[in-house]
Amino acid sequence: MSELHLLSPRGFKASAVYAGIKMKQTPDVGLLVCDCAASAAAVFTTNKVFAAPVKVGRENVAGGRLRGVVVNSGNANACTGKQGERDAVAMCKLAAKVIGCDAKEILPSSTGIIGHLLPMEKVSDGIRWAAADLGNSAKHALQFGDAILTTDLTRKSAAIEVKFGKDRVRIAGVCKGSGMIGPHMTLHAPPHATMLAYLTTDAKVAPPLLRKLLAKACDGSFNAVTVDDHMSTNDTAALLASGASGALVSSKKDVERFAAALGEVCQSLAYQIAADGEGATKVVAITVTSAANEKAAKAIARAIANSLLVKCAMHGNDPNWGRIVSAAGLCGVPFDADKCQLKLQGTAVFRKGRPLVIDAAALSAKMNVKEVQVDLNCGMGDGVATVWTCDLSREYITINADYHT
Amino acid sequence: MSELHLLSPRGFKASAVYAGIKMKQTPDVGLLVCDCAASAAAVFTTNKVFAAPVKVGRENVAGGRLRGVVVNSGNANACTGKQGERDAVAMCKLAAKVIGCDAKEILPSSTGIIGHLLPMEKVSDGIRWAAADLGNSAKHALQFGDAILTTDLTRKSAAIEVKFGKDRVRIAGVCKGSGMIGPHMTLHAPPHATMLAYLTTDAKVAPPLLRKLLAKACDGSFNAVTVDDHMSTNDTAALLASGASGALVSSKKDVERFAAALGEVCQSLAYQIAADGEGATKVVAITVTSAANEKAAKAIARAIANSLLVKCAMHGNDPNWGRIVSAAGLCGVPFDADKCQLKLQGTAVFRKGRPLVIDAAALSAKMNVKEVQVDLNCGMGDGVATVWTCDLSREYITINADYHT
Repeated sequence: MSELHLLSPRGFKASAVYAGIKMKQTPDVGLLVCDCAASAAAVFTTNKVFAAPVKVGRENVAGGRLRGVVVNSGNANACTGKQGERDAVAMCKLAAKVIGCDAKEILPSSTGIIGHLLPMEKVSDGIRWAAADLGNSAKHALQFGDAILTTDLTRKSAAIEVKFGKDRVRIAGVCKGSGMIGPHMTLHAPPHATMLAYLTTDAKVAPPLLRKLLAKACDGSFNAVTVDDHMSTNDTAALLASGASGALVSSKKDVERFAAALGEVCQSLAYQIAADGEGATKVVAITVTSAANEKAAKAIARAIANSLLVKCAMHGNDPNWGRIVSAAGLCGVPFDADKCQLKLQGTAVFRKGRPLVIDAAALSAKMNVKEVQVDLNCGMGDGVATVWTCDLSREYITINADYHT
Repeated sequence: MSELHLLSPRGFKASAVYAGIKMKQTPDVGLLVCDCAASAAAVFTTNKVFAAPVKVGRENVAGGRLRGVVVNSGNANACTGKQGERDAVAMCKLAAKVIGCDAKEILPSSTGIIGHLLPMEKVSDGIRWAAADLGNSAKHALQFGDAILTTDLTRKSAAIEVKFGKDRVRIAGVCKGSGMIGPHMTLHAPPHATMLAYLTTDAKVAPPLLRKLLAKACDGSFNAVTVDDHMSTNDTAALLASGASGALVSSKKDVERFAAALGEVCQSLAYQIAADGEGATKVVAITVTSAANEKAAKAIARAIANSLLVKCAMHGNDPNWGRIVSAAGLCGVPFDADKCQLKLQGTAVFRKGRPLVIDAAALSAKMNVKEVQVDLNCGMGDGVATVWTCDLSREYITINADYHT
């Protein structure tokens, strides 16, 4: 996947510029454009407080066709009232004008501080400047990816190529997210955290199917990541399909293969968000099996992932598994300590209600790695879920207590 | 309330000793004894994973009568299987023997590390030593209060005296809690965090009424405190009524007065837990009014209280109110940013969907105090709730990442 990028799927161009919205002098206004009216789907935050671009974006994507995406970082355009809505619509109009399409064919996104009106002069300049430099090179893909970053320390992208008979289909994406991460995105509602993801593909997929595929891929990826469990006002994941590969995805077999490839791209992106969680020094992958049902498995995995005590223990390489078992019991779904088995980095530490004899120092050493695996078998049913999170460090506090409005 | 203490209500004795269970050389085994078979009620954690003493305690308090409480700190006796249950029963038997009652009349409690068997020899010695020193002085009350502490930095106690006609009724209590704090205690199930509270009164209250009064008092106090929202396996709040004042609480008016006084004691104790939250430098009091209903008010207040981003902003005296509004929207209950008003330390910052012009530096200075007040009027219905939490500091990480098992 290493050489492919967001613009490898045929039929897309992008660009981004620094328009002076962010403090940091990296791109903050970006355009992603499809040559044709792409089949499009998007999922949005389920927060009752959603940003103006989320409102406008939901309306614009409803028809299943988009020509492009316009995004800014440095300002979330959230909690900005009617003026915020007018600004989000204005962003679409400005982008539509330079692209040559209808404003309703543009998905707008914003990320950054909440509660401040967008500096529309800068946004407008940025859109015009970006339009003058549209291209499909790796450099263009990189710039667009940079334009959505805020507190992120790393760029996040993934891409894949799959053969469909004689055709090669590509799926690619970029995303951002480091803090305010706890997405619960659905087609009609929203996630936790500002998480933005833009996915491109040159497969030909009808809008209703694309929506279904995107929602499913998000559930097993972005919606399974949490940094601070704070669902954002702006979370958005959008998938545009140009159809330029000529490969039509409609047979059951093709749909399954496409879904698997899309799932792989989304999981890679989601994992990168966990790894770049604010202050993170490691990823914690929590896999719950044999829970009473899938809902219970998800709830238990999330409760463990969101426990500050578990996250701190992970930071300190402390095999304090009592925090994990107690977190599993607190979320209100069926769970029985007398039936479960817990493994930390492959070492069984608790089984059927009883602590096991462990070499705590040796296990602590095994936890001093970039990814710690927590496996909880509940011994109850067939519910399975995996959630990714990161540890909680002093650096998280520094970032979030000293980041002033 | 300053001169009254846990043993001011007539009919109670207590004592505590250091038996070598905790690292820190402060009391770790305590006894609280009533001269008679007290009317008793207790609420326990609703965590599906509950400690052995919680299991035994639920059974023993079911009859509504107790002679005493035996407690140890330094070891939670949780996730310890059948042996843990036998140890909790053994604690009751040892205490019953020295008190001269039935083991079923004893409520056992433990707090500390999860997943280790109790050092029963030390517990047994501790109970015998404590029994030899029972008394009702302020010093005895202090010792018992100390015996329940773990990571707490401060002692927590409260007491009140109320006149009932010619009788003076006293209500007093001690509690512990600093981390693993997010109680949801109910009569039949459990809370978040190890929170222990023991309350005494010399009023005469029938067990069924006592249970109702305790549950109600806990809802507005202990269950409204969160430090890390991690419901513990051991949370317990117990109330013993000796009846020694002679004042019978049964008329509607008397019940209301008693409930108010009990509520005051519990709220004082709960507030002390928030103030001593691990790493806390300040209390954050979140009051939600005009929510769609009471359940929604509680959910919104808790979501704000548990947001790491809000807690970090409080630590940094940052009036980043977007984090508060977005937290209010993420918990799934009805909330509409276009109807609400948010005040931070009395200063309106957001009203009906629109940000207000504020002097951020002046407001930040107003937040640099020991208690920050957050007031969110939802503009929807008559739901009201208050939740207390603390800020999140680097010290929290230090305490919980470096506290090794």
